[in-house]
Amino acid sequence: MTEMNFEGWTCPLPLQNYPTIVMGHGAGGKMMNDLIAHLFAPLFDNDLLGQMGDSTALDLGALNAGGRLAFSTDSFVVSPIIFPGGDIGDLAVNGTVNDIAMSGAKPLYLSAGFILEEGLAMDTLGAIAASMANAARKAEVQVVTGDTKVVNKGHGDGIYINTSGFGIIPEGVHISAKNARPGDVILVSGTMGDHGMAIMSKREGLQFESQIMSDTAPLHGMIAEMLAVTKDIHTLRDATRGGLSAVLNELAGASQVGIEFEETKIPVTPAVNAACEMLGLDPLYIANEGKLVAIVAPEVAEEVLDVMQKNEYGKDAAIIGTVTEAHPKRVVAKTAIGGSRVVDLPAGELLPRIC
Amino acid sequence: MTEMNFEGWTCPLPLQNYPTIVMGHGAGGKMMNDLIAHLFAPLFDNDLLGQMGDSTALDLGALNAGGRLAFSTDSFVVSPIIFPGGDIGDLAVNGTVNDIAMSGAKPLYLSAGFILEEGLAMDTLGAIAASMANAARKAEVQVVTGDTKVVNKGHGDGIYINTSGFGIIPEGVHISAKNARPGDVILVSGTMGDHGMAIMSKREGLQFESQIMSDTAPLHGMIAEMLAVTKDIHTLRDATRGGLSAVLNELAGASQVGIEFEETKIPVTPAVNAACEMLGLDPLYIANEGKLVAIVAPEVAEEVLDVMQKNEYGKDAAIIGTVTEAHPKRVVAKTAIGGSRVVDLPAGELLPRIC
Repeated sequence: MTEMNFEGWTCPLPLQNYPTIVMGHGAGGKMMNDLIAHLFAPLFDNDLLGQMGDSTALDLGALNAGGRLAFSTDSFVVSPIIFPGGDIGDLAVNGTVNDIAMSGAKPLYLSAGFILEEGLAMDTLGAIAASMANAARKAEVQVVTGDTKVVNKGHGDGIYINTSGFGIIPEGVHISAKNARPGDVILVSGTMGDHGMAIMSKREGLQFESQIMSDTAPLHGMIAEMLAVTKDIHTLRDATRGGLSAVLNELAGASQVGIEFEETKIPVTPAVNAACEMLGLDPLYIANEGKLVAIVAPEVAEEVLDVMQKNEYGKDAAIIGTVTEAHPKRVVAKTAIGGSRVVDLPAGELLPRIC
Repeated sequence: MTEMNFEGWTCPLPLQNYPTIVMGHGAGGKMMNDLIAHLFAPLFDNDLLGQMGDSTALDLGALNAGGRLAFSTDSFVVSPIIFPGGDIGDLAVNGTVNDIAMSGAKPLYLSAGFILEEGLAMDTLGAIAASMANAARKAEVQVVTGDTKVVNKGHGDGIYINTSGFGIIPEGVHISAKNARPGDVILVSGTMGDHGMAIMSKREGLQFESQIMSDTAPLHGMIAEMLAVTKDIHTLRDATRGGLSAVLNELAGASQVGIEFEETKIPVTPAVNAACEMLGLDPLYIANEGKLVAIVAPEVAEEVLDVMQKNEYGKDAAIIGTVTEAHPKRVVAKTAIGGSRVVDLPAGELLPRIC
């Protein structure tokens, strides 16, 4: 929690006594400048942000070495905004860091766009911004440009955050949803369903024997280690909304291949397993925020697995299946009792507002 | 208005009959894929968007020539979402295009992040996305990556849009809020207050003799023409939230200089003038979405003015004042009757949710 210091703010009197967001904080005047100068700027402090322009100018000398840019955007509307294992602030940083990283890029710069609801406690905003700043430090990215809007009470949900950003894809790295090939091996970096079940347990006030924590985490460090041992990584995707089933279906579709995996190989914590059984949910459909699916050439699969397991975010990594020529665009699970079933995309709203 | 064709969508039955956004459209499954495949993809069609990755990979060969990147973000929460002269869609494209352009950069690529409220009419979303696509075509930028979230009814206002993006600043161009110098000349590119008064008239149901239209427009073409005649453009800023008064105060602060302008030189249309008088508002504080403030070396001021006036978006451009060594960080207006007054930053909420 950041201690807010209201000394020196341009505050119409009520704001001093009731430190919450009011419409004026988004209207482009002194109050907005105060919010930026006193709350955001000290937290996200860096020279680039200090340019105070409509945009931020960046030198990208690294692109001279032949790299390409990876550009991504994500809006975060998770409810509740604070949950076991994280909050909307670190989620917003890690989410876009991961989207950039899935191309093999090293994430560098983020933007932060805030849509604040009138009445949001200034302390809450301070805590979330501090959490973003911490996550950015951990992921070694800089928030270099931002925007703040305020909407009337009843037209938001406390805070929505958009982060966009980019990084540089090194030369020789060609990771794409379209690159999975028959014979390739499919790995996941850890247990499935932790983020979604953490949100759901908080949202519904459920109590389990051990608390389920969100897995929100930046994955680009692990990916860099994977790429250091082989460039034969064909496809990477983080398994967020829609869970593992959505990702496998999207990759099967994009690469026009079949996918087969063994249900018993999917890592799931006992707590998530128990919660899913109780609620009649399938961990394959539950969102993750710090887990990736990798599809790699068979020759390098064991080596990649080894590197993943040595990383703090991949210690439960596992090989779960293979890419097939058979049944293109279809994902098939081999069940524990030796049968097989088609794993379809979820239709819609298993767990909305999960991220 | 785009005609929506619901043939081939994965629609739970109610959606076929009630074509509005439901929570499932943001949950990462088939319904979200339908929305992307059938609504967004055809409108924003380009090869880069077709990569279907978590991020979009971009070749920026132009950076090899020594340019820098200008990166910007903006969320749009304007109410109402459709107004005389534009809608939230073209506003979202032009707003970020302009923020990028104010560095002297040629805008290239945008992201689009949608926060949709459950219940939004699919037709409205289609019309707004089409308007974005048109604005992008006009501004010669590509929307290359996107994200869609859906929030429950009562937690949004139909649609919020974040656009982030970047462009390339040519070598030798150094435009910054900090570069205004005593003796420099201040220009505005046209009439003040049109966007804000268009929103207000629609919001409040006001009728004036002639309808006031938003001035939303992309300004990078005009800026490129200005830079073609001189690199001695020190500062550029679009006069959005807080209007001209906010921009001049920010620039005076960032450059640690004084600013003096003549009130009678500020271009204002008769309709905006009349509306402001009726409502007791000052056009200096009203938002614009297609107007910029330029601060240039005195030697080139007339030449720059000439180029601006020849552009469709600068035909009412005018020289309004000068940068002074006196009264640093303070903006002073010379009034029609020969007096002078300090023009302060607005405090807060003159017109919230204007963009």
